Amino acid sequence: MSRRVSPLESERADYRPRVPAVLGAGIGTVAVREGGTPVPPVASDDDEIRARFPTTHGRPAVELAAGRDRVAADPLRVGVVLSGGQAPGGHNVIAGLADALRAIHAGSRLFGFLRGPNGILTNRHDELTAERVGPFRNTGGFDMIGSGRDKIESDEQLAKSLEVCRGLDLDGLVVVGGDDSNTNAAVLSEYFATHGQKTVVVGVPKTIDGDLKGGGIEASFGFDTATRVYGELIGNICRDARSAGKYWHFIRLMGRSASHVTVECALRTQVNVALVAEEAEQRGWTLDHVADSVADVVRRRAAAGRNYGVCLVPEGLIEFIPEMRGLISELNRILTAEGEAVERLDSADDKRALVASKLSQAGAKVFGSLPVLIQRQLLIDRDAHGNVQVSKIETESLILSEVAERVEAWNASGEFAGKFSAMCHFFGYEGRCAPPSNFDADYTYALGRLAAALVAHRRTGYVCAIQNLAAPPDEWRAAGVPLTSLLAIETRKGRRTPVIRKALVRLDAEPFLSFARERERWQVDDEFMYPGPIQYFGPPEVCSVPTRTLELERAASASTRGR
Amino acid sequence: MSRRVSPLESERADYRPRVPAVLGAGIGTVAVREGGTPVPPVASDDDEIRARFPTTHGRPAVELAAGRDRVAADPLRVGVVLSGGQAPGGHNVIAGLADALRAIHAGSRLFGFLRGPNGILTNRHDELTAERVGPFRNTGGFDMIGSGRDKIESDEQLAKSLEVCRGLDLDGLVVVGGDDSNTNAAVLSEYFATHGQKTVVVGVPKTIDGDLKGGGIEASFGFDTATRVYGELIGNICRDARSAGKYWHFIRLMGRSASHVTVECALRTQVNVALVAEEAEQRGWTLDHVADSVADVVRRRAAAGRNYGVCLVPEGLIEFIPEMRGLISELNRILTAEGEAVERLDSADDKRALVASKLSQAGAKVFGSLPVLIQRQLLIDRDAHGNVQVSKIETESLILSEVAERVEAWNASGEFAGKFSAMCHFFGYEGRCAPPSNFDADYTYALGRLAAALVAHRRTGYVCAIQNLAAPPDEWRAAGVPLTSLLAIETRKGRRTPVIRKALVRLDAEPFLSFARERERWQVDDEFMYPGPIQYFGPPEVCSVPTRTLELERAASASTRGR
Repeated sequence: MSRRVSPLESERADYRPRVPAVLGAGIGTVAVREGGTPVPPVASDDDEIRARFPTTHGRPAVELAAGRDRVAADPLRVGVVLSGGQAPGGHNVIAGLADALRAIHAGSRLFGFLRGPNGILTNRHDELTAERVGPFRNTGGFDMIGSGRDKIESDEQLAKSLEVCRGLDLDGLVVVGGDDSNTNAAVLSEYFATHGQKTVVVGVPKTIDGDLKGGGIEASFGFDTATRVYGELIGNICRDARSAGKYWHFIRLMGRSASHVTVECALRTQVNVALVAEEAEQRGWTLDHVADSVADVVRRRAAAGRNYGVCLVPEGLIEFIPEMRGLISELNRILTAEGEAVERLDSADDKRALVASKLSQAGAKVFGSLPVLIQRQLLIDRDAHGNVQVSKIETESLILSEVAERVEAWNASGEFAGKFSAMCHFFGYEGRCAPPSNFDADYTYALGRLAAALVAHRRTGYVCAIQNLAAPPDEWRAAGVPLTSLLAIETRKGRRTPVIRKALVRLDAEPFLSFARERERWQVDDEFMYPGPIQYFGPPEVCSVPTRTLELERAASASTRGR
Repeated sequence: MSRRVSPLESERADYRPRVPAVLGAGIGTVAVREGGTPVPPVASDDDEIRARFPTTHGRPAVELAAGRDRVAADPLRVGVVLSGGQAPGGHNVIAGLADALRAIHAGSRLFGFLRGPNGILTNRHDELTAERVGPFRNTGGFDMIGSGRDKIESDEQLAKSLEVCRGLDLDGLVVVGGDDSNTNAAVLSEYFATHGQKTVVVGVPKTIDGDLKGGGIEASFGFDTATRVYGELIGNICRDARSAGKYWHFIRLMGRSASHVTVECALRTQVNVALVAEEAEQRGWTLDHVADSVADVVRRRAAAGRNYGVCLVPEGLIEFIPEMRGLISELNRILTAEGEAVERLDSADDKRALVASKLSQAGAKVFGSLPVLIQRQLLIDRDAHGNVQVSKIETESLILSEVAERVEAWNASGEFAGKFSAMCHFFGYEGRCAPPSNFDADYTYALGRLAAALVAHRRTGYVCAIQNLAAPPDEWRAAGVPLTSLLAIETRKGRRTPVIRKALVRLDAEPFLSFARERERWQVDDEFMYPGPIQYFGPPEVCSVPTRTLELERAASASTRGR
């Protein structure tokens, strides 16, 4: 019996994603042109990367072009793995891949590794036939094959991966993931190449955080849909705030370190305040400074008779305020050194006291200034790598309590002409598995088809790069960027490690500049915009527009080229 | 300069709501037919109501019909007030009212009282010209004129209202609100009628909670849109839960006392568990019983390898579990009697201890079993009427902590074969001001036009009742239900008071029965449905379907009629 589906799911099942011609029906006969994409500047640690990636480093960027290179005389066998947090469109990457592989050769076969990279290590996979893939077309989530956060790093893991890919006789392995997973893909690609394993490894840029871009990658998939879901909710809350006239809403947004999600949502809703973690870091703001700046808007709005407002707080903020970052790294050190002693204590208060006693003077001062709730959250919930999990710290509630303190003081001294009542929200899980917008449905399907073409053309160590994304899909370009061109070397856990650096919000570039130019206007006068829910069927201005981030970045790059 | 608007807002500005022919272009010449709607059974305290509403009680239900009764030789002057919490579509009630008044006579004028009933008492109003109303067509929120929770109850307030309506020379006053506000409308109508004031008072049924229905009213406006927004988010979270495979999500839903919102959302998403407050009350469930039943699903899912799930918790649950209701009323009594003594204590712990010492043995036992966080929330935040504010009690976190205790015990004894990790959400403010669905946009616009017709026909003390709502708008009927026919007498604050009773979820009727028949199937096997976001432009199956609640109620009533 087939699953009961909602009316929208049923309708979306028939959606045919739009792709550029080169990724269309003739995908079996396209040509690959080298140097099609500008090669990004060589990283400063290029020599070290060349030494670590002797076989795969230094290859040119490529671009698909109309051509007559029929590639696969034989059927292709390809594996695909979803890695890390969910992002809308993952299923369409698989659908595009499956369709293109079959278009290239009807006898091609696709295998989905289950529950992330661990599925490779344990050789658990499902064959992804047309029937298996069908019901997942244009749906959100990663539940077709699951995802996971494991990494393939150690020599044993690399050897095991090779054994599994060899056992399945894979021509290609498509790794769908973020910065870490694509770094992993680069490592696997090199490992396979130097060990004579034919499996071509191709990466696909995924993350709702929007921090995997640059060097030829314009956007990670999922960012569009997730920010639209958050934008819908924020807009609704702006309208509620203005209608009720009596609440401030402090809204924390998912996005890890980077504040791209917050900036995109701010541009689309024109909230009264949106904090940007990267700005706090680069300007060296203290928690007090941040709270002062928000409280000032609260005060000025109250003076204008507006006892309500909306403030966005990126979840990464807590780690980007320099004094907080210092405190967190002290805490990480103490918890590693004193973990057992802390564990032995029964009460949360005793634990806090013990940790506090080990802090530096500066650390103790910051720690002591925080609400007890936040102190507790800073002490629990380290992830497997010993890092604080920003998504579990209620930074919005921290900012709110600091603001409330200031308002109370003003109230006591008669400097506050209004009322202040507030509530907190956290939006994250609501958007990660949303059904993909038309943009993300098209984009991910194109990425999947591009991945198939790169495998067919035996281009290992490339990440799929669909370009010109701010234009309609028929104007998109299909490129491949060598993964090693994105790598830098960083010291992690005491070891020199190749990494793709997260692309943070740049304060000297669009779209931050556009946000910074406008934000003052939004503070006291209500200039809210209400994006509403994602539309799939409406006029193109409503259902097929790129993010503000993409639009502004395109405009900026066009104007640079025009100079 | 006109406000910058989102692409969807811009597109929706041109939407023309659909209404039945009788509310269309010819609204100036319709007839009012008496007895058109079946008169609901007379309340048991009919005599008392007749005594309190001697002039307006006992009037027949009416229905608009095609006709040639040209009504208004003179222009009409009408006031409108939005009362209570926001609900999607409020602006379209005003737009429909404004358009119909002008269609009836081009010289008619509409005045919007500002910030709720208080705007009547203080005579603050804006004239709602076509230009003033235009930008708000089909938008969410109540920010066109604001809303408020004040009531018009005392003799002074009634007299003041009369004075203001007389001063403005109002032919009609349209009160948009929930059960309390429509009760207020009945009282005002009677007061005006007995004091020779010509102002006709008409009610419009509004509330996202869905608890204002029955006696000829099929649904309150806003319920459709709000439950679709929550359904979108719950569906996304179901997909996330299933994709990540490692979290339970406990989601509290707005809705006050009644669980209509929860039942509607459960039917549309098929979550693993949905608690229904009315069921807990009628079956006399204890908190332990509720927690046991949820924990049992967690255990069985874990045994099936599913360490994730979704549980809906109506915010009203806390007051409907009999032992909690008993505790809350004890606490209300103690806080009233000992309020000052409690206030004088500095620490939250001392306050809790003092209150706990005054509780009965049964009350103390229940109170002592609760997490400290919930104990605190039960002691703070009484509303102006001394009632606990359910929206501020984290009932989902209470249920979660009770479930977690059970899982821990099972873990300790080796009876639990899995992992349990959970997070909490509260959805409410995200939906109250969403842009109205096509249904709510049409429905509210029709309500506004109907209100104008009832004023023109001088039918005071009626609530607008658009009927046959599960059918397309051209099959809707436009009726008026006498407000007093909805009234019962209850003792409130020691006084016999007329009230419109909230319509709670009926356990012996659809849609609860349909939910109860299916819910076991949803518990262990994943049967999630993903409603996705509200669509405005798609095929009718996607963008113009009524709620499951309306559909099931219609099917049930059709089958009753067919017997």
